Amino acid sequence: MKISQLSTESGIPLPTIKMYLREGLLPPGERTGVNQADYSADHLRRLSVITGLIRVGGLSIAAARSVLEAATSDIPLAYTLGVAQQAASALVNPADVDIRDLKAADEIMSPWLYSSDGPGRLGVAQVLAALTASGLPADPRWLERYAEAALVVAEADLDLIDTRESREEKSETVVIGTVLGDALFAALRRAAQEHVSNKRYNQPSE
Amino acid sequence: MKISQLSTESGIPLPTIKMYLREGLLPPGERTGVNQADYSADHLRRLSVITGLIRVGGLSIAAARSVLEAATSDIPLAYTLGVAQQAASALVNPADVDIRDLKAADEIMSPWLYSSDGPGRLGVAQVLAALTASGLPADPRWLERYAEAALVVAEADLDLIDTRESREEKSETVVIGTVLGDALFAALRRAAQEHVSNKRYNQPSE
Repeated sequence: MKISQLSTESGIPLPTIKMYLREGLLPPGERTGVNQADYSADHLRRLSVITGLIRVGGLSIAAARSVLEAATSDIPLAYTLGVAQQAASALVNPADVDIRDLKAADEIMSPWLYSSDGPGRLGVAQVLAALTASGLPADPRWLERYAEAALVVAEADLDLIDTRESREEKSETVVIGTVLGDALFAALRRAAQEHVSNKRYNQPSE
Repeated sequence: MKISQLSTESGIPLPTIKMYLREGLLPPGERTGVNQADYSADHLRRLSVITGLIRVGGLSIAAARSVLEAATSDIPLAYTLGVAQQAASALVNPADVDIRDLKAADEIMSPWLYSSDGPGRLGVAQVLAALTASGLPADPRWLERYAEAALVVAEADLDLIDTRESREEKSETVVIGTVLGDALFAALRRAAQEHVSNKRYNQPSE
């Protein structure tokens, strides 16, 4: 199909598609003339992936490009996960994180195997620091249950990757799952909070 | 203390503090002269809260103002939760969400009590739509475990609010917990993914 049809079918404005092509998020179409190219169903699907990462997952153009590169490259799957995690996390400079907060993070996650400078450990330490600074230091029992829930979700994530057959599908699941999984959990948490709050404080007739 | 000392103690640049005052995120200090005001330890703590919401929680200035207004107003606590949820969620227009995706969201959360136009339900539907469009439709067992984990976290959140004694502390916990809880869970999920991946694919000697 022509680029104009790609825009109609995807509902994404032409200038946005051209920007994605320029920025390398969308691979070029097949050249059919001096100023014409042909786009396929793969392009349409890729546009959906890009929109999901940027609009629903909240990634920047640059972050979306990194995760898409990770998804289509030949690097081992374990690295794809690392790249997706980096791209889908706020950049934290290890030098900005207090050793006390890192130790507190390690305590919460004590039986786990994780890297000392990954976005997981640095991110947890940063949130703990922000809670303490706000005068609302984290409650140990609250943290414990968060960690327990995170492990349930992580096992589900890795199981999902295992169900995919091809290398490409596995990579795409890592990348899209990392980004959209955050958004999914945040939304489910909001609905669950409403539910628990309704149940506790103004139980409607059941 | 003077505003310059507030900047030194908090590590936040003077122009940023002045912007927070102008934008109404930080309440004015006590007037001590024509061009001078006195700031207290409360201002220092409030600055930490603002920094946590914006830098760690990723909120915009406008969103941070809404959640802070909710935390300090006299509205019932159940509404504070709603306002914090709205402010800490991407704005989704219900008209943009397909009824099919809303039904799929309802299926996942079928025993829960939640509002039909809240950020929880709309957000879940939006993520489901993005997954389907990406050619990676959500796996039912994966969703089930996410919902199960979200309920654990929501119960922990509401328990945390219950432990606070004053109305003000409860509100602050709602607001800060809503925003920083997302960031905490996302970071814990990353560390847990590393752990599960290490355990499954390259188990180090234990």
